Amino acid sequence: MRLFTGFLAALFLTGSAFAADEHASAPVTIVIHGGAGALAPGRYTPAEEDAYEAKLNEALDAGYAVLESGGTALDAIEAAIVLMEDSPLFNAGKGAVFTREGKNELDVSIMDGATLNAGAAAGVTNVKNPIRLARAVMENSEHVMFARDGAEKFAKEQGIETVKPKYFRTERRWKAYKEALKAEKEAAKQDKDAALPHDFKYGTVGAVALDANGNLAAGTSTGGMMMKRYGRVGDSPIIGAGTFADNKSCAVSSTGWGEFFIRLTIARDICAQVEYAGKTVEEAADDVIHHRLPDAGGDGGVIVLGPDGSYAMTFNTKGMFRGVKNADMQSVSIYGEAAAE
Amino acid sequence: MRLFTGFLAALFLTGSAFAADEHASAPVTIVIHGGAGALAPGRYTPAEEDAYEAKLNEALDAGYAVLESGGTALDAIEAAIVLMEDSPLFNAGKGAVFTREGKNELDVSIMDGATLNAGAAAGVTNVKNPIRLARAVMENSEHVMFARDGAEKFAKEQGIETVKPKYFRTERRWKAYKEALKAEKEAAKQDKDAALPHDFKYGTVGAVALDANGNLAAGTSTGGMMMKRYGRVGDSPIIGAGTFADNKSCAVSSTGWGEFFIRLTIARDICAQVEYAGKTVEEAADDVIHHRLPDAGGDGGVIVLGPDGSYAMTFNTKGMFRGVKNADMQSVSIYGEAAAE
Repeated sequence: MRLFTGFLAALFLTGSAFAADEHASAPVTIVIHGGAGALAPGRYTPAEEDAYEAKLNEALDAGYAVLESGGTALDAIEAAIVLMEDSPLFNAGKGAVFTREGKNELDVSIMDGATLNAGAAAGVTNVKNPIRLARAVMENSEHVMFARDGAEKFAKEQGIETVKPKYFRTERRWKAYKEALKAEKEAAKQDKDAALPHDFKYGTVGAVALDANGNLAAGTSTGGMMMKRYGRVGDSPIIGAGTFADNKSCAVSSTGWGEFFIRLTIARDICAQVEYAGKTVEEAADDVIHHRLPDAGGDGGVIVLGPDGSYAMTFNTKGMFRGVKNADMQSVSIYGEAAAE
Repeated sequence: MRLFTGFLAALFLTGSAFAADEHASAPVTIVIHGGAGALAPGRYTPAEEDAYEAKLNEALDAGYAVLESGGTALDAIEAAIVLMEDSPLFNAGKGAVFTREGKNELDVSIMDGATLNAGAAAGVTNVKNPIRLARAVMENSEHVMFARDGAEKFAKEQGIETVKPKYFRTERRWKAYKEALKAEKEAAKQDKDAALPHDFKYGTVGAVALDANGNLAAGTSTGGMMMKRYGRVGDSPIIGAGTFADNKSCAVSSTGWGEFFIRLTIARDICAQVEYAGKTVEEAADDVIHHRLPDAGGDGGVIVLGPDGSYAMTFNTKGMFRGVKNADMQSVSIYGEAAAE
C-alpha cells in the first residue's frame, strides 16, 4: 500500500514537474471583475461604457503581460487590481463609496492557491493600494488579517504607500453620499427606513489568475457598502467569502451583497463543490449564484478560474463589469447573461 | 417534473413537521470546548483539573437545560458560552490574554444552522459577554460583522452590558504577558524572535448544539492570540473558519492556531465534506484536523455536531478542554485522544 502510494506520488511529482516545463505550461488566464449590480443597458452613456471597457481591458492587459512573461498569478492579479484601485470608476481605492460618517474605509484580501497562504485587511483609510497591503500581510507577517488602525500601523511599518484620506474622494461618490444622507433624513421624518441607491452598494473589484506553473491566485478590493456603520466588515476581506484560491479546486473573487457572501461562504463553497462534488467551475458557480444565493435573498456575482484554465463569470444581478484574457481571446462586458467556458 | 418536485416538497414538509413533533424530536445534544493546546497530563494540579471539569460540567448543564425544556440551539450555546466567558479559567471574556500593547481584545461569532444567519465582532474591549454582542449583530442588524470601535458603538446602542476594560484582567494572564514582554526584550538583544509560551496561544471557548426541532447552532468566543499586534483578527469571528452551522450538514466551533483555520476555512471544510463527500462528522473532522491542518503546519481542534446527534471532538494537540451532554450521557475531558461517537 505504501509502495503503491509512493508510486502515485512519483507520478504526481513527474506530472507537476512537467506542468512547470515551458513546453507543457498551464493555459495562462486572467479573469477580472469590477462589481455586479443593477447594470441594465442604458444605465451608462456610450462614453461611460467606453471608459469602463477601456479600463477593464487595461487591467486585463497588465495582468496578462505578467503571466505571458512567466510571472506569477499573484503578481498578475496585483497588477490588474492596482489599476482598478487607481481608477475612480470602481468602488475600490480611489472612488470608494462613503461610510455613514463620510469616510472611505477599504477592505481587501488576497490568496495564493499554491500554498493556501492569505492576507487581508479591514477598514483601512490611508493605504493607496489596499491589495499591496493584503499581499504584505500574507508575505511579511505570520498573520492573515489586520483591522482598522492596527492594519494601518502595519502598513506604515512595511513602508507601503499611504495617502491622505481625501485622496479616495471623488465628486460622484460624495454627491451620492450627500443624497443618501438627505434621503435618510427625509425617511426618518416619515418614520421609515431610507432606501439606498441600489447600485452604489456594489462596485468591488477582483481578479483571479492561472500562471504557467499551474498556480492559481485570487484577490478582492473594495470600499464596501455605501453608508455602512459600526466598522461593518463585508465579505471582501474574508477568506472563503470574498476570496479563495486552492490549486486543487479553483480561485474565486466575489462581488455583491457581502453579508450573504459571508453567511454562505460563497468562494469556499464554489471550490468545495469542485473539490468534493466533482463539478466544473461553471456548474459550481451556477449552483451557488443562481440557487443558493437568491434562495437566501442575496445577489451579486463571482469570477471563478480552474487549474485547467476553465472559467466562469456568473452573476444574478442585471450586469457585472467583467473581462477575461487568455492565449486565444480577450473580452470585456458590462451587461447581459453570465458567461462561462 | 414540476408536479414531481411538488410531491417531494410535500414529503419534505411533512417530514419537517414530524421532526418538530415532540414524539419524534431530534436527539438534543450540546458539545463544548474550552480551547486546545499543550495539555499533557501533569500540566495542571488535581485541584486545577477539578476546577476546569466543574466549569465545563456547569456550562454543559446550563446549555442542556435549555434544550431539555424545548429551548433553541442558539439559546443553549449562548447559555454555555456566557458561563465560560465569565470564568477566569478560559481565554475568553474575563481571563482573556493580553495583546502586545497590554489590552484585552475579544473576537466572537455565532451562526444559526436553520437560517444561515450569522453575527460576529472583532477586537472589542468593553463588552462583558461578547457572545451576546454577536447574537445582537445577527438578530438586530442587517450586517454580519463589526470591528473594534464600531462594534463597541453598536453594542452600546443595543444596550448590551459593558464593563471597564480592567474587568477582563486576571493576574495569571497579566503575569504571562509581562513574562512574554521580558522574553521578547531578551530575544531582541540576541537579535532573534522570542518564543511565546505555547499554550497561552490558545484557550478559545465554543459550543455547538442540536435542539428538539432539529436546528443546529454554533458559537465561538476568544481573547485571541497572546501578544497579538496590529488589530490582528483570528479565526474566531470568521464565519467558515471559527464557526459554521448549517442544518443540512453540521455545526462546528474551532480552537487553535487561527491563521491556519482561516486559510483552510476549517469549519466550512468539515461541513462541506459532510455535505458533498458524504462523510460522517467524525470522518470529516479527522480529515481536516489530522491531515489538512498538520500538513499546512497548524494545530488545534474542533467540536462538530450533526443533525442526527452524531458528534466529534477532534484535535491534533496534546489536549482540548471539552465536554458533551445528551439524553444518554455527560462527559468532560482535558487530555488524551480525540473522542467521537
